[in-house]
Amino acid sequence: MLAVHLENRRVETRNVPRPRRTEGAALIRLLLGGICNTDLELLRGYYGFRGIPGHEFVGEVVAADNPHLLGRRVVGEINLGCGKCDWCRSGLRRHCPTRTVLGIVRHPGAFREFLTLPETNLHVVPDSVRTEEAVFVEPLAAAGEILDQVEIPDRAEVAVLGDGKLGLLIAQVLNAQRKSVHLYGRHRSKLRIVERAGVQVTLIKRKLPSNAYSWVVDATGSADGFRHAVQMTRPRGTVFLKSTVHGTTKTDMAPVIVNELTLVGSRCGRFEPALALLQSRSVNVADMISDSLPLGQAKRAFALATKAGVLKVLLQGD
Amino acid sequence: MLAVHLENRRVETRNVPRPRRTEGAALIRLLLGGICNTDLELLRGYYGFRGIPGHEFVGEVVAADNPHLLGRRVVGEINLGCGKCDWCRSGLRRHCPTRTVLGIVRHPGAFREFLTLPETNLHVVPDSVRTEEAVFVEPLAAAGEILDQVEIPDRAEVAVLGDGKLGLLIAQVLNAQRKSVHLYGRHRSKLRIVERAGVQVTLIKRKLPSNAYSWVVDATGSADGFRHAVQMTRPRGTVFLKSTVHGTTKTDMAPVIVNELTLVGSRCGRFEPALALLQSRSVNVADMISDSLPLGQAKRAFALATKAGVLKVLLQGD
Repeated sequence: MLAVHLENRRVETRNVPRPRRTEGAALIRLLLGGICNTDLELLRGYYGFRGIPGHEFVGEVVAADNPHLLGRRVVGEINLGCGKCDWCRSGLRRHCPTRTVLGIVRHPGAFREFLTLPETNLHVVPDSVRTEEAVFVEPLAAAGEILDQVEIPDRAEVAVLGDGKLGLLIAQVLNAQRKSVHLYGRHRSKLRIVERAGVQVTLIKRKLPSNAYSWVVDATGSADGFRHAVQMTRPRGTVFLKSTVHGTTKTDMAPVIVNELTLVGSRCGRFEPALALLQSRSVNVADMISDSLPLGQAKRAFALATKAGVLKVLLQGD
Repeated sequence: MLAVHLENRRVETRNVPRPRRTEGAALIRLLLGGICNTDLELLRGYYGFRGIPGHEFVGEVVAADNPHLLGRRVVGEINLGCGKCDWCRSGLRRHCPTRTVLGIVRHPGAFREFLTLPETNLHVVPDSVRTEEAVFVEPLAAAGEILDQVEIPDRAEVAVLGDGKLGLLIAQVLNAQRKSVHLYGRHRSKLRIVERAGVQVTLIKRKLPSNAYSWVVDATGSADGFRHAVQMTRPRGTVFLKSTVHGTTKTDMAPVIVNELTLVGSRCGRFEPALALLQSRSVNVADMISDSLPLGQAKRAFALATKAGVLKVLLQGD
């Protein structure tokens, strides 16, 4: 079967054996995969990654222990825990210290014709949710994670910095959850996607406002984003860190201390609320799809995904 | 009258006019002042400071509008707010955007024979609290601030990094407030001060533990402190930032995001709980006094305060 392979900063497609299903795991046929910024970072060598990437997917279950899964469309949580530690037992396997992570850490990813994943990681996609929407469940879950970490009051003004894929999803999730969202970005066309949903948007030209919000989300993916987010936050306010910037960056923590800010690191989230948002049509993900290419054209798809102005590029399993 | 003066990285004593009291302000005769690390940083040129330093003090009120203050020993909150903004009106004048700060920002400090301060900033020292204990109220209030910001459960294990003055006070305040405190430091003699109070202590030799605490306080005052504190914190744990490290430092925020840590910047605190801790004899500050010198010997006192192993150096107003 066909699989995407990353190695030495190159994207290849290879023929590999179909994976064998073990007890408790489902064999899944890929329907759609989504290329995420993390995949682009893996391509750049982050984590010393070499292998099959892909952690955003929708697939169809072709073999499983649980008969109710057979033939169903599923999405899958990407953290595979040990199942025994306190984290796993409390439902937070995404913090299991010995976890593997689909397509990122010691578990081959979803960009292949067939993949396996523990059945406990799977969520059935409701019939009313289209496959090209469901492929956004994983990043939508990550976007919503901040609401699981901190209670933001309804109608609170929240600034989201960055109009990349994650920024657009965060702005929409917060907007759907009754926050008064203001998205700051550098691309008029991207801002328009969420403007239609009722998010207030500002095209950044020069200076960002100072001391203006009690809640700020940094989704810029840039080292400057942290500094800007801190500058925009009122004393005693909260900054959510959703941007993984790799390696050390020059950071000034003095304003964090003087203004007594709270910084909240935030990563993966629960799939249930993300599926519910899609089912209730509370977010618009379809407009975020820039292109969709067959798995065999992964090289072109990755190249496209790195281009400025391009949002989500999908890979088709068929 | 005599006043300490900092300029061009030098400590001087000068003769200056006695300050005039304005309406709503008290004229206070200095009894004792405490040299803080911030004073040492002002001496190094931080904030472009030039003038009279000093923000830890106990004085005797010699003139005031409020007759109940006359002749009383007082300590004073160091932030002078506008009195009109939302912050001031909600009791958080220490975040007033136009505040001045005693001995730090645009308000002459306490290291002089007489000083003035708004009467609303003053707290009368109970008779049972000695002057050399009361001089610790300001840093004790800062130490206790984290308990006003975040609710830490009773008996929770809290690691405090750094056995300088602030680290010793934080360890004691948390210990007095029923937390299970573990102080990590590099000075056996300093660790002993809090060990007597029931704090568990570890002399740092090589490696600090990893992923070991859900609550960690960085009071090291060093750029490395942040990295160590993050490393010691369990996923979803909280790191309190009590160290002001000036300028930009090289920081790796990736573990904060991956482990979904919460970082809480923390600065000044309320005086009431600090006075209550001294009154109930719940903390031992007397053992933290390294020396006490007359105001006229400020140069020697500052030199002493910068020496390794030295804790609090006091300046006597008499």
